Amino acid sequence: MKVLFLLIFLQQIFTSIMLSQESERRYRARELGIAVGILPTGKYNAITDVKGVKVGHKTIIKGDSIRTGVTVIIPHEGDIFKEKVPCAFYAGNAFGKFVGSTQIEELGELETPIALTNTLAVPKVADALIQFTLEKSGMEIRSVNPVVGETNDGYLNKIQDRVITYQDVLDAINSASSGEVEEGSVGAGTGTIAFGWKGGIGTASRVLPKNLGGWTVGVLVQTNFGGILSINGAPVGLELGKFYLKNELEKADGSIIIVIATDAPLMPNQLKRLAKRAMLGLARTGSPSTNGSGDYVIAFSTNPDCRIKSIEDYQPQTIKVLPNFALSPLFQAVVEATEEAIYNSILKATTITGYMGRKVEAIPIGKVLEILNKYNVLNYDKKFKTK
Amino acid sequence: MKVLFLLIFLQQIFTSIMLSQESERRYRARELGIAVGILPTGKYNAITDVKGVKVGHKTIIKGDSIRTGVTVIIPHEGDIFKEKVPCAFYAGNAFGKFVGSTQIEELGELETPIALTNTLAVPKVADALIQFTLEKSGMEIRSVNPVVGETNDGYLNKIQDRVITYQDVLDAINSASSGEVEEGSVGAGTGTIAFGWKGGIGTASRVLPKNLGGWTVGVLVQTNFGGILSINGAPVGLELGKFYLKNELEKADGSIIIVIATDAPLMPNQLKRLAKRAMLGLARTGSPSTNGSGDYVIAFSTNPDCRIKSIEDYQPQTIKVLPNFALSPLFQAVVEATEEAIYNSILKATTITGYMGRKVEAIPIGKVLEILNKYNVLNYDKKFKTK
Amino acid sequence: MKVLFLLIFLQQIFTSIMLSQESERRYRARELGIAVGILPTGKYNAITDVKGVKVGHKTIIKGDSIRTGVTVIIPHEGDIFKEKVPCAFYAGNAFGKFVGSTQIEELGELETPIALTNTLAVPKVADALIQFTLEKSGMEIRSVNPVVGETNDGYLNKIQDRVITYQDVLDAINSASSGEVEEGSVGAGTGTIAFGWKGGIGTASRVLPKNLGGWTVGVLVQTNFGGILSINGAPVGLELGKFYLKNELEKADGSIIIVIATDAPLMPNQLKRLAKRAMLGLARTGSPSTNGSGDYVIAFSTNPDCRIKSIEDYQPQTIKVLPNFALSPLFQAVVEATEEAIYNSILKATTITGYMGRKVEAIPIGKVLEILNKYNVLNYDKKFKTK
Amino acid sequence: MKVLFLLIFLQQIFTSIMLSQESERRYRARELGIAVGILPTGKYNAITDVKGVKVGHKTIIKGDSIRTGVTVIIPHEGDIFKEKVPCAFYAGNAFGKFVGSTQIEELGELETPIALTNTLAVPKVADALIQFTLEKSGMEIRSVNPVVGETNDGYLNKIQDRVITYQDVLDAINSASSGEVEEGSVGAGTGTIAFGWKGGIGTASRVLPKNLGGWTVGVLVQTNFGGILSINGAPVGLELGKFYLKNELEKADGSIIIVIATDAPLMPNQLKRLAKRAMLGLARTGSPSTNGSGDYVIAFSTNPDCRIKSIEDYQPQTIKVLPNFALSPLFQAVVEATEEAIYNSILKATTITGYMGRKVEAIPIGKVLEILNKYNVLNYDKKFKTK
Repeated sequence: MKVLFLLIFLQQIFTSIMLSQESERRYRARELGIAVGILPTGKYNAITDVKGVKVGHKTIIKGDSIRTGVTVIIPHEGDIFKEKVPCAFYAGNAFGKFVGSTQIEELGELETPIALTNTLAVPKVADALIQFTLEKSGMEIRSVNPVVGETNDGYLNKIQDRVITYQDVLDAINSASSGEVEEGSVGAGTGTIAFGWKGGIGTASRVLPKNLGGWTVGVLVQTNFGGILSINGAPVGLELGKFYLKNELEKADGSIIIVIATDAPLMPNQLKRLAKRAMLGLARTGSPSTNGSGDYVIAFSTNPDCRIKSIEDYQPQTIKVLPNFALSPLFQAVVEATEEAIYNSILKATTITGYMGRKVEAIPIGKVLEILNKYNVLNYDKKFKTK
Repeated sequence: MKVLFLLIFLQQIFTSIMLSQESERRYRARELGIAVGILPTGKYNAITDVKGVKVGHKTIIKGDSIRTGVTVIIPHEGDIFKEKVPCAFYAGNAFGKFVGSTQIEELGELETPIALTNTLAVPKVADALIQFTLEKSGMEIRSVNPVVGETNDGYLNKIQDRVITYQDVLDAINSASSGEVEEGSVGAGTGTIAFGWKGGIGTASRVLPKNLGGWTVGVLVQTNFGGILSINGAPVGLELGKFYLKNELEKADGSIIIVIATDAPLMPNQLKRLAKRAMLGLARTGSPSTNGSGDYVIAFSTNPDCRIKSIEDYQPQTIKVLPNFALSPLFQAVVEATEEAIYNSILKATTITGYMGRKVEAIPIGKVLEILNKYNVLNYDKKFKTK
Repeated sequence: MKVLFLLIFLQQIFTSIMLSQESERRYRARELGIAVGILPTGKYNAITDVKGVKVGHKTIIKGDSIRTGVTVIIPHEGDIFKEKVPCAFYAGNAFGKFVGSTQIEELGELETPIALTNTLAVPKVADALIQFTLEKSGMEIRSVNPVVGETNDGYLNKIQDRVITYQDVLDAINSASSGEVEEGSVGAGTGTIAFGWKGGIGTASRVLPKNLGGWTVGVLVQTNFGGILSINGAPVGLELGKFYLKNELEKADGSIIIVIATDAPLMPNQLKRLAKRAMLGLARTGSPSTNGSGDYVIAFSTNPDCRIKSIEDYQPQTIKVLPNFALSPLFQAVVEATEEAIYNSILKATTITGYMGRKVEAIPIGKVLEILNKYNVLNYDKKFKTK
Repeated sequence: MKVLFLLIFLQQIFTSIMLSQESERRYRARELGIAVGILPTGKYNAITDVKGVKVGHKTIIKGDSIRTGVTVIIPHEGDIFKEKVPCAFYAGNAFGKFVGSTQIEELGELETPIALTNTLAVPKVADALIQFTLEKSGMEIRSVNPVVGETNDGYLNKIQDRVITYQDVLDAINSASSGEVEEGSVGAGTGTIAFGWKGGIGTASRVLPKNLGGWTVGVLVQTNFGGILSINGAPVGLELGKFYLKNELEKADGSIIIVIATDAPLMPNQLKRLAKRAMLGLARTGSPSTNGSGDYVIAFSTNPDCRIKSIEDYQPQTIKVLPNFALSPLFQAVVEATEEAIYNSILKATTITGYMGRKVEAIPIGKVLEILNKYNVLNYDKKFKTK
């Protein structure tokens, strides 16, 4: 017990030093002692902990007005179009322009990388995914279902210009890698805003204990929404005086795209159940999913055992899938990873000045830490020995 | 070619003789030369052609006012609660009281027989299914999801009395058998009305050619709806002068419950796709699915290979399922079998007099045959050698 | 009665003369005596019978390989973005790339013209709708929900080239007009195929009797699907020897987009009920909605009385809407107009030769008429005096 | 500022005294200083703050084994069947037996009181609602859509006995009243369990500021689920050592029914949007909505201005509804009231011993308060002057 307190104490000192010395540096939630939930993270605490998944960004900053980008999530290293993966879609609140959802809902398959971008660039990015798929394949393909999510960065970015090109999307795809994922004001998160602070890209993961299946769940988010920010239970938004409906005036629109990857073998209707749980993770950060929010979730399984070959054939195929009972721990993993990915997206985001000279500040990490200490919500993993 | 015409001619003579001699007798569509679609039927042209499926009726006719009943469809011979079968639900138009749909939608499983009855008897029948499941099982069961569909027989039946008992439901279950299915004014179809004529229970089936998978699809319907009856394309409703909106006055409410069974190995989301096609078969008979209609479809697979054991376990299970491509012929089978099952329900139904002395006539088969001949729509199977 | 027969006889002679003299000419269903259903049509028997609705086409035929186009449906003459109209979406079978559906589902509003095109051109057309909306408005708009449907013309059209430009979409919008609508191999229907024959754009309408509300329902379709063609009940596909599963070999994929307009004052959830009925009209033409079919329906109301101003305001707004009871005749109208619009799309379509020298024939009208006569299904309006 | 601390200090002393003196007494969240969110509560902080709404309980405790009951929510004082109210339904996770959902989804109307009970008693209670509606009305009613939710009290209650009678339901209806609502181990909450502690019935409400519309939102819950309890952000479950997946062993199934009432004038599709937000409130208490959980939400509006008369008529009706923009504060209200209602259900619940001698403890309020103090999460309303 004493050792525990010593550890926590030392980390707090370390954190203080970090923060004072490197005022510009940004930290992931875990680096600050924010341990969400009770399940252990994967190696990188990122969606890339799901084997085979890669993430790539193209950050587009041009002149005074363009602050946007593209982020791609690639489900496996093969030809996605030929080796489609089981997939599901859920719209928490659909004030948004997600492309590709209906075919996913019908067939339960993903056949392109998932791309995230800004609202008005969706068609250009969708067209680029088609181009990419046509070029990658040796066959004459007549039908491609590009999957593109978006949030609206039109406050910092001159969104009407729709500057994103095929090459930008290709750059994002080609730069995609496994391992650590760049977070914050990058790629599709370059110009986004969350809870009044700079938002962006965030990621996190969970690994189930072996006797619960041992599966990995990874989540990546593009945050651009509002509400009353709470971090691991602490009322950060209220303490910082920036929150939805403050003086009955503050608005909270915006959106979030949540991408879930798992290596658990699941059918599409089971993946949909996972997708719905991402909204529970979102809720825990303080979003009421306002009218103007485009809150979409897409979930896919990388497990080859549950993949049904999409061929012109009338024979049954053998797959492996989990019984519904086994989904509960996966649900918990989705909730936790989504919550933590959102924190990462905000804590890693840097201040951005953009269109019309508008500036959105990064959340002040020093103050956040003070608040988290005041509410005693740090180092739950050590306190409760949950991991 | 000459032989064909001779055959058709002879059947027409035979049919005329049948009809003149036995004015009370009712006939299935096929017996009258009505061959719907292009796929061959199963042996009994009934839902029971799907191996293991049984159907039971309890017809309840009491005094002047009670004209109702229960029909049960049992998916296999084992303990349904322990050996749940993959299942999906679709509401074409949900002015109705179908019970059990949400859990089927979530888990994709059927765990009791499916019972059909009248609108106000649904709770009593659902309670009986619970009782049956509790008694059948040796275990202490705390949760049962009874599945009950209904249509409203309140014109011929004093529906407010809700006379159906546990014993009635048990009788229906115990009388269930494979092979031929009794149709028309029996069981849950005792008091129903379709297109202004007596409706009731009908069934039909289709068997896919081996190279399309060889699967069987069976459909059972409880008809109680309206519209502008067309039989195999012929405008029977218009010719008989009984149709929806006639003189802008005739109403067409009522409902239909459609039960689909198949031995094709399918996931729940694929079964839902089948379920949606039943509405297409309904459309071909002339229903616009009016506001007051409760048009529900439930589809299940009896194939053990696609059954996921509903156990408290975290291990993947091996199942076999068809790729989506293989579903198209099954869709055609559902459309055809639904259309034909509806015709059977009407053609086999007998005149019923009931509550308040109200009388609903059986459709006049002689006149129907004249119309079908006038429109040249009989014996398509022989004409087009489709089977 | 004699007069009726004389009339029918004269029309048949007239039709024969037409067909013999002008072998190239194409006819609408009504011109051939095909009278679907029992409700009267509007003046133009077109979606434009709904006051304010305009339709525009841009047909794109270039060299040997490009056979495609754009069709736009404009809901009213004002600024659609500012005066959004109540709208609903329904996916009968979602193997397709419809864009804009989720926001319609959430908010119940349409804010751009509806554009139809080919599968791989969807992003370019969506981008054009954004551009159009940005340019039309004087305001700085950050969010636009373009609505684009598609079917796949990749057999006749070198679809991979994605040649459609902003100017093409603008041309379609600027050419849009009320009154008669060009049908067949035009606009988004230039390269499509239906039931093995040339498909394309078709339209039809129905007007309810005054005592049922007096509302108009208009439907426009882009047909590109298969099945077993039946026209007004006659087995045209079987007679012509071209049908789904013929010799267990013929496939039937493809898609249909169905656009419904009405001046009935309806809430979005009621419009969705209308949208579902379009699938019933589709069913009557012989489609089983195969796996590969993208069968989407979008329905909107032009009635200003049910329009909720999309403003940033907390006050209730007064609207007028129909009770659910009043929807049944509208359902019948949707079923009838959809069925007839599909016939029109095929009967008006002309033979097209395109990519790789492939040729798709127009359905032979002379033979079709023979079949319809053989099955006695012409002139129902006169026979049954339904209108 | 000093006054604030004094107030808080005094309340803490008062609370300590309360707790020490009356160890049996149970407290609502607000009485303990738990102020959830930022919006003010209604007068009773109950669903009955929505004018006209009444709540009634019948608690059924018999012998050693029966610990169950019925709770009814009555939307207004008139004849519900004749004056149906706009209503929507949402299934967060549908491992449950909710009755009446499909018709609500289709028509957007509620026509009976809402009853809550145990899983296996659903049919008996549904039958009682039919009986009640038939008897109340002077007319011959042929169709009634009873609405019944349930959670499974089979651990404390011998649920298989299904002891609930028509009289019990009638007693609940007749005892219904406005004003304060009895919470905890009463009515349908008599035998339920939440987060490993005794659960039950809870309620809360929010009132929007006048300039946001001034509407009231009330929520009532029947809690019977698990997870990792957090109260207003504090990790109560972890601190008490009782939480889902503890040592990878603890399960968390069970269910919650959430009933939302509001006087805001809304269309059914808007009410559905409110219903979805209840899951966000649930998430904040620590539920991952496990596989075995039946998490259902039903939302209705009592505002007569948005009520469409359910009559057999073809004329438009005038209603008032809010634009979508105005829904965001209502969403926030739903989230807050749901979260607080859940706390109330647990904090007010008393220890129950039942079937097989099983005992489920009330959550220890003294310890909970210590934890809440440790995490500094009390008296947010005073601290942040949110209200």
